[in-house]
Amino acid sequence: MNKLLANCAILETKDHEFHYIPNGYLGIEEDTIDYIGEKKPAKVYDEVLDCHDILILPGLINTHTHSAMTLLRGIGSDLPLQEWLFDKMIPVEDRMQYDDFQAGMELAMLEMIASGTTSYSDMYMEPALEAKLLEKSGLKANICRVMQGFDENQTYEENGRGRQSHELFQTYQNACNGRIKVDYCIHAEYTCKPHLVEAYVKQAKNDGARLHIHMSETRKEHDECIKKYGKTPAKWFSDLGAFDIPCAAAHCVWVDDDDLNIMKEHNVSVSHNPTSNLKLGSGFAPIQKMLDMGMNVGLGTDGAASNNNLNMFEEMHLASVIHNGYHHDPTILNAHEILKMATINGAKLQGRNDTGEITVGKKADLIGIDLTKPHLKPIIDPVALIVYSAQGSDVVLNMVDGKLLYDHGKYLTLDEHEIDLHVKAAVNRLFSNQ
Amino acid sequence: MNKLLANCAILETKDHEFHYIPNGYLGIEEDTIDYIGEKKPAKVYDEVLDCHDILILPGLINTHTHSAMTLLRGIGSDLPLQEWLFDKMIPVEDRMQYDDFQAGMELAMLEMIASGTTSYSDMYMEPALEAKLLEKSGLKANICRVMQGFDENQTYEENGRGRQSHELFQTYQNACNGRIKVDYCIHAEYTCKPHLVEAYVKQAKNDGARLHIHMSETRKEHDECIKKYGKTPAKWFSDLGAFDIPCAAAHCVWVDDDDLNIMKEHNVSVSHNPTSNLKLGSGFAPIQKMLDMGMNVGLGTDGAASNNNLNMFEEMHLASVIHNGYHHDPTILNAHEILKMATINGAKLQGRNDTGEITVGKKADLIGIDLTKPHLKPIIDPVALIVYSAQGSDVVLNMVDGKLLYDHGKYLTLDEHEIDLHVKAAVNRLFSNQ
Repeated sequence: MNKLLANCAILETKDHEFHYIPNGYLGIEEDTIDYIGEKKPAKVYDEVLDCHDILILPGLINTHTHSAMTLLRGIGSDLPLQEWLFDKMIPVEDRMQYDDFQAGMELAMLEMIASGTTSYSDMYMEPALEAKLLEKSGLKANICRVMQGFDENQTYEENGRGRQSHELFQTYQNACNGRIKVDYCIHAEYTCKPHLVEAYVKQAKNDGARLHIHMSETRKEHDECIKKYGKTPAKWFSDLGAFDIPCAAAHCVWVDDDDLNIMKEHNVSVSHNPTSNLKLGSGFAPIQKMLDMGMNVGLGTDGAASNNNLNMFEEMHLASVIHNGYHHDPTILNAHEILKMATINGAKLQGRNDTGEITVGKKADLIGIDLTKPHLKPIIDPVALIVYSAQGSDVVLNMVDGKLLYDHGKYLTLDEHEIDLHVKAAVNRLFSNQ
Repeated sequence: MNKLLANCAILETKDHEFHYIPNGYLGIEEDTIDYIGEKKPAKVYDEVLDCHDILILPGLINTHTHSAMTLLRGIGSDLPLQEWLFDKMIPVEDRMQYDDFQAGMELAMLEMIASGTTSYSDMYMEPALEAKLLEKSGLKANICRVMQGFDENQTYEENGRGRQSHELFQTYQNACNGRIKVDYCIHAEYTCKPHLVEAYVKQAKNDGARLHIHMSETRKEHDECIKKYGKTPAKWFSDLGAFDIPCAAAHCVWVDDDDLNIMKEHNVSVSHNPTSNLKLGSGFAPIQKMLDMGMNVGLGTDGAASNNNLNMFEEMHLASVIHNGYHHDPTILNAHEILKMATINGAKLQGRNDTGEITVGKKADLIGIDLTKPHLKPIIDPVALIVYSAQGSDVVLNMVDGKLLYDHGKYLTLDEHEIDLHVKAAVNRLFSNQ
């Protein structure tokens, strides 16, 4: 099966930069891009999609979320962080059952597909369920079993999360033709004892897995780690071997220059979550400094409980302006860098070298933007247009591995109505009588 | 002519707060809301609109923009401010003719209507043309003739802007049944000589007009004013009498505590433009402090050249999170305050006491949000949902003075196709051979 996207505008990726083709053709053979050009290709494709007035760009990669938390959207908004977490989030999360996780993940997938995400890195519960739902939805994701362990006296075996991560990895790594990847995951320094982290990282290394962690999100977390261990979270993770395997660290708001040097030396990727970091009052991560050092930085939404959506266009928009304001410099974090963060850098963070780019030989993981909307006229700078002017809802096509998941408001792999019933039932279970 | 919006969710305004009605009715007699309730009204309406799965809220009020600059969207993104302004903006603006202003304003109106704005305050050229376009589009706006005068030796009469403002005021104030209002406008301290400002303000006072100004947007502007005049821009404007009439000051990023006291004493309203202030590297205006002092603060997009869109949902989103991050406090500028800024406070800033609220007796200036979108589920906190989760594109209805301007993607007063041709012609004129 092959198809041709005809008469579309294209943001082609060349040498990790974006190049604009105002009117071109994009050919797909099975799951892979096999042609990009201004002229109609000689090859005859089985299917031709007229993409007039549509701009094709790489699908967006959400490098940090907690997908099932869509169910908790809007709970405890505007509360202090500790109150929000302990009085609002955790009590509801404690009540969540298998069907609730399913409803939350399904709702997240609908939202991500409609707003242009093709791949995401998740950190939450029920990853085997998630793998099942990913098989159906057609999305790509790095899923994980989260390591937590507060008990000094608990052995690694008693904790069990290492064994579960290993089993998950054995079962699902590269499932669905590579769409699903399994990461190891350490929740955070403040929720894990060092002996558990050390053993867990050793096992991840044995499996050849990648690691996904929270790090230095809040000043409190960062400073208390120094008080407790005499070192920053980055140094703590590094000393326990966590950076000896490919690692994606979410937030990194409070990392200092020594931390950045350690992270750079170990090729740690950073997931920048601007909305969440601002909304929860955490602060401004030193993103331009990271980029100047040559570090790999992707973008993430965090969960919908602290965002309150999974809209990567909003993250691009925020990331592109907030650092300008914070540093009083309009030239930093320009539109090209931001779009790279949301695509190419995200793919690298996820350990996927076959996506995040519109170029021949890469997987056909792409989205289409409706250029007829008034806020997308005129097209003077297409990359600036995507980053500064577009909305998630401008996405009219979402394609993963050459398969259309979304076409002008219609979901082609998921049943929106069925999911709506799941969400209503879950909300009813979780919030009635509260 | 009267109509009933049936089976809709409603964010009713009571005592300047929002109250959620999950399933209700909203009746409109001519241009005015005459019923809000959970029960179907006894009165029989000529027309009944089924608004199932739609949330009705007040139309958004954009308190500061330069509408025709939509044509300059994306020019010189990421440049230093002076370079952006003098090398990119001003040369193009110098080439703009009547038809270009028309195309830019029309494009802005399409964008504002589709993203939920019902009224805006504009500061740009060709206000009489704008009045003509407003008559057709059905939007509300405060328009103005901008005062600028760099020449110490120019008399007020030679400058001419005062006379033009007076004529504009005489001709268009309260035109179109009050939809159009005419403000007096002083561009900024750094573009006007004091003797011109003093005479201009006197004339505005005689006319009973309101004033629209830029103030303390950048640190450079603020500090150079102190160097030049020995006082801040706020003190400068105040001493020249500008605050003796109702005044809306855009930006106010660098105002100090004394400035705020002066502004509070004179009931100066502030237009907060978060995207523009961040994107251009200007900084963070002390908005929570203003609100704590009881000052009136509205929201604005600024022009599409420094934003790069006119999407008030993005301004709400940014205003709701950036101050949390800057002050490390998630409790400030909560969702209710933000929605008030975008509606009730905006109406007050514009000198309109009959809009910005969903309550019986106010004008039917309202928008409808499509609640079927996945990112708007579940509905746990409707106000948080609007501020933190919604997008401009969730707007499916836009109504001004009881007249529908926009219904599920269709413009009912403007011709999208015709405007597209105007925009293409203008872009061709302005940017070919550049």
